[in-house]
Amino acid sequence: MRLAASIADLRSMTEKAIPKALFEYVSGGSYEQITLRANKAALDAIALRQRVLVDVSERSLAATMLGRRVSCPIALAPTGLSGLVHSDGEIHACRAAQAAGIPYTLSTVSICSLEDVAAAVDAPFWFQLYVMQDRDFTKSLIERAAAVGCDTLVMTVDLQVQGQRYSDIRNGMSVPPRLTPGNALDIMLKPRWALGVLCGKRKNFGNLAGRVAGVEGVRSMAEWTARQYDPTVSWRDVSWVRSLWKGNLVLKGILDPEDARRAAELDIQGLIVSNHGGRQLDGAVSSAAALPEIVAAVGDKVEVFVDGGVTTGMDVLKYLALGARGVFIGRAFLYGLGAGGAAGVARAIAILRDELSVGMALTGRAAIAEIDPGVLAGDCSIVD
Amino acid sequence: MRLAASIADLRSMTEKAIPKALFEYVSGGSYEQITLRANKAALDAIALRQRVLVDVSERSLAATMLGRRVSCPIALAPTGLSGLVHSDGEIHACRAAQAAGIPYTLSTVSICSLEDVAAAVDAPFWFQLYVMQDRDFTKSLIERAAAVGCDTLVMTVDLQVQGQRYSDIRNGMSVPPRLTPGNALDIMLKPRWALGVLCGKRKNFGNLAGRVAGVEGVRSMAEWTARQYDPTVSWRDVSWVRSLWKGNLVLKGILDPEDARRAAELDIQGLIVSNHGGRQLDGAVSSAAALPEIVAAVGDKVEVFVDGGVTTGMDVLKYLALGARGVFIGRAFLYGLGAGGAAGVARAIAILRDELSVGMALTGRAAIAEIDPGVLAGDCSIVD
Amino acid sequence: MRLAASIADLRSMTEKAIPKALFEYVSGGSYEQITLRANKAALDAIALRQRVLVDVSERSLAATMLGRRVSCPIALAPTGLSGLVHSDGEIHACRAAQAAGIPYTLSTVSICSLEDVAAAVDAPFWFQLYVMQDRDFTKSLIERAAAVGCDTLVMTVDLQVQGQRYSDIRNGMSVPPRLTPGNALDIMLKPRWALGVLCGKRKNFGNLAGRVAGVEGVRSMAEWTARQYDPTVSWRDVSWVRSLWKGNLVLKGILDPEDARRAAELDIQGLIVSNHGGRQLDGAVSSAAALPEIVAAVGDKVEVFVDGGVTTGMDVLKYLALGARGVFIGRAFLYGLGAGGAAGVARAIAILRDELSVGMALTGRAAIAEIDPGVLAGDCSIVD
Amino acid sequence: MRLAASIADLRSMTEKAIPKALFEYVSGGSYEQITLRANKAALDAIALRQRVLVDVSERSLAATMLGRRVSCPIALAPTGLSGLVHSDGEIHACRAAQAAGIPYTLSTVSICSLEDVAAAVDAPFWFQLYVMQDRDFTKSLIERAAAVGCDTLVMTVDLQVQGQRYSDIRNGMSVPPRLTPGNALDIMLKPRWALGVLCGKRKNFGNLAGRVAGVEGVRSMAEWTARQYDPTVSWRDVSWVRSLWKGNLVLKGILDPEDARRAAELDIQGLIVSNHGGRQLDGAVSSAAALPEIVAAVGDKVEVFVDGGVTTGMDVLKYLALGARGVFIGRAFLYGLGAGGAAGVARAIAILRDELSVGMALTGRAAIAEIDPGVLAGDCSIVD
Repeated sequence: MRLAASIADLRSMTEKAIPKALFEYVSGGSYEQITLRANKAALDAIALRQRVLVDVSERSLAATMLGRRVSCPIALAPTGLSGLVHSDGEIHACRAAQAAGIPYTLSTVSICSLEDVAAAVDAPFWFQLYVMQDRDFTKSLIERAAAVGCDTLVMTVDLQVQGQRYSDIRNGMSVPPRLTPGNALDIMLKPRWALGVLCGKRKNFGNLAGRVAGVEGVRSMAEWTARQYDPTVSWRDVSWVRSLWKGNLVLKGILDPEDARRAAELDIQGLIVSNHGGRQLDGAVSSAAALPEIVAAVGDKVEVFVDGGVTTGMDVLKYLALGARGVFIGRAFLYGLGAGGAAGVARAIAILRDELSVGMALTGRAAIAEIDPGVLAGDCSIVD
Repeated sequence: MRLAASIADLRSMTEKAIPKALFEYVSGGSYEQITLRANKAALDAIALRQRVLVDVSERSLAATMLGRRVSCPIALAPTGLSGLVHSDGEIHACRAAQAAGIPYTLSTVSICSLEDVAAAVDAPFWFQLYVMQDRDFTKSLIERAAAVGCDTLVMTVDLQVQGQRYSDIRNGMSVPPRLTPGNALDIMLKPRWALGVLCGKRKNFGNLAGRVAGVEGVRSMAEWTARQYDPTVSWRDVSWVRSLWKGNLVLKGILDPEDARRAAELDIQGLIVSNHGGRQLDGAVSSAAALPEIVAAVGDKVEVFVDGGVTTGMDVLKYLALGARGVFIGRAFLYGLGAGGAAGVARAIAILRDELSVGMALTGRAAIAEIDPGVLAGDCSIVD
Repeated sequence: MRLAASIADLRSMTEKAIPKALFEYVSGGSYEQITLRANKAALDAIALRQRVLVDVSERSLAATMLGRRVSCPIALAPTGLSGLVHSDGEIHACRAAQAAGIPYTLSTVSICSLEDVAAAVDAPFWFQLYVMQDRDFTKSLIERAAAVGCDTLVMTVDLQVQGQRYSDIRNGMSVPPRLTPGNALDIMLKPRWALGVLCGKRKNFGNLAGRVAGVEGVRSMAEWTARQYDPTVSWRDVSWVRSLWKGNLVLKGILDPEDARRAAELDIQGLIVSNHGGRQLDGAVSSAAALPEIVAAVGDKVEVFVDGGVTTGMDVLKYLALGARGVFIGRAFLYGLGAGGAAGVARAIAILRDELSVGMALTGRAAIAEIDPGVLAGDCSIVD
Repeated sequence: MRLAASIADLRSMTEKAIPKALFEYVSGGSYEQITLRANKAALDAIALRQRVLVDVSERSLAATMLGRRVSCPIALAPTGLSGLVHSDGEIHACRAAQAAGIPYTLSTVSICSLEDVAAAVDAPFWFQLYVMQDRDFTKSLIERAAAVGCDTLVMTVDLQVQGQRYSDIRNGMSVPPRLTPGNALDIMLKPRWALGVLCGKRKNFGNLAGRVAGVEGVRSMAEWTARQYDPTVSWRDVSWVRSLWKGNLVLKGILDPEDARRAAELDIQGLIVSNHGGRQLDGAVSSAAALPEIVAAVGDKVEVFVDGGVTTGMDVLKYLALGARGVFIGRAFLYGLGAGGAAGVARAIAILRDELSVGMALTGRAAIAEIDPGVLAGDCSIVD
């Protein structure tokens, strides 16, 4: 892997390394991608205050997330099908995160299973849960997560029905994947990826194996989701999950202050302000627009995290300044994964961490706890 | 017809399928197309509130428009020359709309006549009326609409003079159409379209047959309109039309609250907030900008519908949240028609309906009646 | 000349017809062209109110400018070197304007002289005056204008020093013009233009003949201007010009309310709100931004005209709605001139007039006097 | 050197003349270049008031900076590695500045040393200081500056850690420079540059010679900076520098009013509002956004200068109108240097000065002291 200067470099390298259908699945947003663009645009529009002549020689990025010390307040978000981006992708990503001292969150929709990952790493990781129509199976997922030592459960609440990426339909992204002539050619042109993923050990849709290979042919991922995920999920199901899980419980996909207030009344420990990376409700407000009001509403009761649109350490700094306790990255680490496996994920994390460190220094902050709204320019617009 | 993922896909397919002159006639706007772009830009700038943990498993899109039940609050707008986009285009579109359980509106300027369409379908459809200088002929149109069982008359009020699409002049779009060397070549390259339309049964300018073929050669559509349409039409003509028509009467092309208030004082049942899809007054406010004030002014007296710029179901959702009782689509279904006849129109309707359904689910709405301004983010800007 | 649908079409035709250096001289703005773009952007951002069901069958565009009846409130602005765009350009433009019933303004810096134009047309035209360092010569210009029957003198006040178009330096646009290898080749590729202009009768820099051919070689137009034009010109020179001229006196280039107020205290009849088409102070406010406050300040004392950025009749309508008594066009008619001489200018005027007429109809105005701020949407932004 | 019409022309010429890696080092900004773009965008958004009929024939651009008369209030900013852009670059730039009667500031990170430059010019220049970890060496730099007669010391305070230009990593810009295959090829294609710089007399990293050649191989400029520059620098170090330096002391890199207020309490004579040309904190507010509040806070105590984004004389005018006592240019003169050595720098200065002069004339200002906020349009937006 040549040296990547930026997350954008890793993105380019991944675009060259993996099939187009998969790259578009990873990088795209739902429908017209308005919210996908809004996430980044909202971050770009936030202006930072450059501060000088503060001794920043002893900077520390260490922080805590849900009571645990992290080397910096960045975490890997749950991302579906990571094991297709690189063989054993979930294992590589988890190893890189743990080596960097930050949390990794395994998706329900992984290629490597809970047990696969647990067997390959030394420390606890987080597990992301979709509530399935089959509640017994859902319960078994929670139990398996506990069994392998996960300490935090992230319950995703913004995907009762699935938003559609138009490219997925064009590319034949389905469950199980459909081999179109275009796909086949593309895969032949990427032999290194194909050898890795197609000939790799784990390729059975991890936690959901029986629910993918076993079903009759279905056309789209959205249809599969509609048959598996439960659109009846409601607030009382949070209590049901809570009753089954002893560790930290985090709700992912809260974007509205009203929902945040209701969530904070439950026995949960954190929530992730998220629009699913612009992959669900197209037109939803950007994460940066939603974050401050949610922090104001519930930041004293639960830990408020955020994801969406992060491409630099300055983006992380802006989210922290808006009140986030930690920032989840999805595509940013997947681009590292596609570019170079565990080393690539490590590089992605290092880039963001180094950039955050520079950003802290140039805004005169030597510690994460010093990052407050004072880091941001008054009315937050970069052009006057 | 290959599977279209989106209205944009149908648009591309139609662009390939039909002559350039016709495609530009369908897709273009008048003059510098400022309002054409504004219609979509205004929709894109509206932000939605993502809501979670609401049971949305039993969603219904059913609604009523003018007292009739519709499967979802989408209707096909009147569009001129639809029968050139696909042979027997009006019949195909009407059949698809009725199969989907939504209204179809036949244009005065159709290729298939009122009688053609009525003979081909089983249920009533709507008829759109231009008031012509020849009032006897206008009266006969109304009588013909009643005779074939139309239940709703849509009187267009924003085309006393015609806005100009620059491309129509360049392309020789005239009445009757002029065959330029460019057109001829283009038609030869689209033999499937040519065979369908040119060799089709109905090609006599439907309701207006005698007024097109019979006149001496005129140059532009605007000139033809100027000789046929009546620029003296005023509020008292609404009363005249009212006196001739027993069914529902809808005014199409209201964009100003003052006009809306005056309209609501008459015996009409509905109005359509519209700038004619950006095809008339270039610089007119977008439909989304105009809608809320008009709903506030007259929404309790008449049913307020809207059209303009819809390319996704999220756009429909936004219009409904701004107060519309139903949303008319024009280009969206014509792209389906050009791409695949009745099946293509059905696909266009299905795409928008499915997207609306997803949008409702992700904003926590299980029924059309639950769509209110609370679906929209406070200050409605997607970037904070 | 093939049929041009729009001013943009005429622009394309002129771009193909005349040498690049000349086209860039005509179409360009000074420095980074910020104000050039702002003129049009400001017009585009103004929203119109679509009004319906008003009888607009008897529309009249007739108006008065400085007491004289005009067929519509559009006038041709003074434009330098028009006679290079087309042989005898000033004569062709003047004839077209007079045939259309609107004023033509001859520039001091013309190719055809005052006497040339007067000999070729039947009615009075306007004359634009630059105050030169040689006051005797300036006086003689005024006397010549009176002698040939000009009824209105337009004194340009925004060009004491000349703003620079970067392209003019690159293209060797100088006084007298310099033949670079690039120019020479370009001219050979445009033989029709070259035959017309280079072999035409009048090619001696009209009113200024002796001041161009007679001087030793200078490099740039800006340098030539610096040697000829008078940077000491001040308010008392307006009185001096006033003392020499009996007819209407109009100041062109007022962009600031403070200057407008001072101008209105003098014995002048009109002023033209202008930033010289974005050719002088780059960064100056757009004409549309400046106009309303100036109308409010002095509109009851003098006639306030405007120029800048007009490409459609809707632009004319917007300026009239902002309070202008008449709208001057420069590039718009030059593009007609380059595309087809007098016929091209006539076409440009006809396009704008027809578009204005449609715009009036669709905003419910049957006469120029009915065009008021009520034509514009409340807060004037096209996207709400 | 062909005649450059604008700074943009000089930029193009330099892009062709020097290796790509070096051009990107000079022209680029850190990270996603948000602040780089914001600097110019903020200037572009400021609107000027065109004023007329003021006698501007006797304009003077003369001013004072720190008590010394300058021919116009423009100065050359310190720029690292100028001697790579053109052989003996610092000497050429200094000579051009002094010939033009404006200050030149030598960078600590120069190719020609303090002594080299002093030996080649006749008048005092300014010296820019980075505080290094080796305080003895820092002290020696200050002493050397005094010894060669520098009268003003510019202490840069916004680079305790270095922001990263992504292109530098891709291009192998390192200390010492690394010869990549791409670089080598590129250099061979630019033989004139290579002969000049590589075979030139001075190529030993001027003031820092021993600190560059002597160190073991390091990878990035950021790493080298991290080993040399002192991240502990704080307000008390300003006092330390002050104690070592008798002349004028200027702080460069103040962007926040709070920092400006604290700086003004010290015995300094000036400060430069700067975000390091968008090369340090990406996301920092633009210089134009920061300037007015800082002038309001400390403009009566110290001279407030500014840099960032200047590409025309209108930009200089805008900064002066916002309250700056002088405007520093960096890239603008480097583009002149790359295009044509001392003559190119002279051309860059002449372009900006001439443009400033025109801008003053067209806003009705005959002297620098007359440039006040009244030059700017009320709410400062170019589109109303």
